[in-house]
Amino acid sequence: MDRHLLKKYAEVIVGIGVNVQAGDNVLVNVGTESLELSRAVVRECWRRGARNVITLINDDDIVLARYEEGRDDVFDVFPDFEVEYIESMMKEKYHRIALRAPSLDLLGHIDQGKIQRSQKAANIALKPISKYMDAGDIKWAVAASPSVRWAKKLFPNCSEEDALNALWDQIVSICRIDADDPVAAWAEHDSHLKANERWLNERNFEYLHYEGPDTDLIVQLADRHKWLGGSSVTPDGVKYMPNIPTEEIFTTPHADRCTGRVKATKPLVVMGKIVEDFSFTFEDGRCVDFDARLNGDVIETLLGMDEGARRLGEIALVPHSSPVSQSGLLFHSTLYDENASCHFALGKAYAEAIRGGNTMSEEARRELGANDSMIHIDFMVGGPELQVTGYRKDGVSVPVLVDGEWAIDPSAS
Amino acid sequence: MDRHLLKKYAEVIVGIGVNVQAGDNVLVNVGTESLELSRAVVRECWRRGARNVITLINDDDIVLARYEEGRDDVFDVFPDFEVEYIESMMKEKYHRIALRAPSLDLLGHIDQGKIQRSQKAANIALKPISKYMDAGDIKWAVAASPSVRWAKKLFPNCSEEDALNALWDQIVSICRIDADDPVAAWAEHDSHLKANERWLNERNFEYLHYEGPDTDLIVQLADRHKWLGGSSVTPDGVKYMPNIPTEEIFTTPHADRCTGRVKATKPLVVMGKIVEDFSFTFEDGRCVDFDARLNGDVIETLLGMDEGARRLGEIALVPHSSPVSQSGLLFHSTLYDENASCHFALGKAYAEAIRGGNTMSEEARRELGANDSMIHIDFMVGGPELQVTGYRKDGVSVPVLVDGEWAIDPSAS
Repeated sequence: MDRHLLKKYAEVIVGIGVNVQAGDNVLVNVGTESLELSRAVVRECWRRGARNVITLINDDDIVLARYEEGRDDVFDVFPDFEVEYIESMMKEKYHRIALRAPSLDLLGHIDQGKIQRSQKAANIALKPISKYMDAGDIKWAVAASPSVRWAKKLFPNCSEEDALNALWDQIVSICRIDADDPVAAWAEHDSHLKANERWLNERNFEYLHYEGPDTDLIVQLADRHKWLGGSSVTPDGVKYMPNIPTEEIFTTPHADRCTGRVKATKPLVVMGKIVEDFSFTFEDGRCVDFDARLNGDVIETLLGMDEGARRLGEIALVPHSSPVSQSGLLFHSTLYDENASCHFALGKAYAEAIRGGNTMSEEARRELGANDSMIHIDFMVGGPELQVTGYRKDGVSVPVLVDGEWAIDPSAS
Repeated sequence: MDRHLLKKYAEVIVGIGVNVQAGDNVLVNVGTESLELSRAVVRECWRRGARNVITLINDDDIVLARYEEGRDDVFDVFPDFEVEYIESMMKEKYHRIALRAPSLDLLGHIDQGKIQRSQKAANIALKPISKYMDAGDIKWAVAASPSVRWAKKLFPNCSEEDALNALWDQIVSICRIDADDPVAAWAEHDSHLKANERWLNERNFEYLHYEGPDTDLIVQLADRHKWLGGSSVTPDGVKYMPNIPTEEIFTTPHADRCTGRVKATKPLVVMGKIVEDFSFTFEDGRCVDFDARLNGDVIETLLGMDEGARRLGEIALVPHSSPVSQSGLLFHSTLYDENASCHFALGKAYAEAIRGGNTMSEEARRELGANDSMIHIDFMVGGPELQVTGYRKDGVSVPVLVDGEWAIDPSAS
């Protein structure tokens, strides 16, 4: 990776992503797979005048060792002091940067019950943390951290070095790092996303109708749902970009009002496995049936996590022509793949995707239809054959996506 | 590094070093410089039935970024939640493994005031942690983690790969990893150290007289001082080996009763700098003068940390023929260099090197002569021309080291 581009990528993550201000505290979660990038990001945080930067470094093989060698009872425990540590940082408003490489099939050979128990213990223990994020004053950004393992998954016929370079090329292009002025490129991109966001909010649809191959689904939207895309803003007015890249406009479906069948259009990588060719059937918001050609047991495990795991917490619109989609690659990374395709998420809704949601209790949001769960798992439903039509309360219908592309004119009101 | 030897080294660190028992909690502090070793050590902890293993991964360049780019006021702060995190683990009896590579001149170009302020803030904040270690029921082990930077310092004319291999060869040999049965080799080594420890404790010397080039020093020992070497034992009777390697027998000098002059025989690597050709003059235990050919300002900074930083907290005897010394290398790592040479430490004494010290208050230990300070910095005084003579209360004198070698017969009583 070219040092100059590495630095520009770090500047986009820190400057546009979490938009570190002088005096900010920052928590940086990174992996050992891309230390050069991690170092550049941490350095950029300090350079922008951070008050403190805490860097937590994770290692895939150390995670794996626990699953392979740990006593059986370790998987039901998540230590209190780990929760208190993160909670203390949230109380002191540590803004969060996460650099991630997908772990792919790292845990593919591990008993799924162990993984489920371990994730459940962590999710339950860390549940109190989410309320700090709900308030909206903690900025966060997630970006990709290229690893050799990931690169070889995408480019299996290349050498490790060539594969890594090819992955970097994709990231640089998709994240607009190669623009003459990445800051200006991101500002322009954000203004397009904001125009679509505004158009959707002005329509205030009651429900969307999804039609495509093996898909026919009515998704009612939550009361006071809000469409969001691109940058977020803190209550103090600081803009930040939670996902790098981001191509989606998303909102909150009503957890109890979704009916029909939807077929996923890309594989789902979760709990160390790849689920392929799967679909869900919903009745009154609840998933009552599913099928999958490969690894359906993972879906079963997921749906069994809690009641909210069977219901939708997010729907997102992405044109089929998005740069991620144009790459023609399946990235095996939700961060990238969800920006190639319209998608849904099973599980917890985002507080900010409800009007006034950030200052509302979880119970109040649930009454409006926003789902609650310990999980939030995205799956892809977009493609060149997807039609999405919006229906307003007055019965008027408006094409939103036609053949997978935006059918709207944001300049019209 | 040969995978088989790596595994054997990890087994020595985990099995003989901290001696992980089924049900133990373990905290592993590692650096990014030797992830393969870190992974092998963590895996071995799990394999031995650890209840939990927490791995904290540190990165030199991330440390450096803070010093190079951080705002000036960050160096006076150490967050409470970091202290609470470690303290929670100490309360839950997390045994500690530290894998370390010396950071050498990493911070050589950084303003020393910054480093001093930062270390002082950390030392003051972490002071409450030391009481958990004093109780003696938390096992700990420190071992070397080879880095390219370290290897190139020792073997500057080799390629990175050759230098790293040469460093590994030294570690393997000095730490008895290449023995047919490292466990048996360590047991035999420990029994030799224990015989010398017993001999010294039986003599119950009042003071030692050090004589050598530019050295003439009387070191009175603390009341109820205890000589220690090789393995330690928890109150529950579990043996462990705090330092890998270890060749020393050490005890507690009286903090107020040391008089004369001592010349260091090896450079001191501290606060990112190398201090060379230095000596101290003591009166009534207090360092009243020093000189140094290179980087004397670091000594001045050290002595200024607190009152205890000017007094001795440890004296250790090592024969000049120790395997570390035989290597002929200056390792620039205290862990190795202190096992090549008799040494002293400025700063805090070890509770366990006072009879009954582990169950005594800090004040009570101080009354017996055991020094207290936020620092503990070793410097080397041994060599082939060093004579050490022990004096008993009854006036009888006994040669302890002659020309740098043990002059004692542990089989005599």
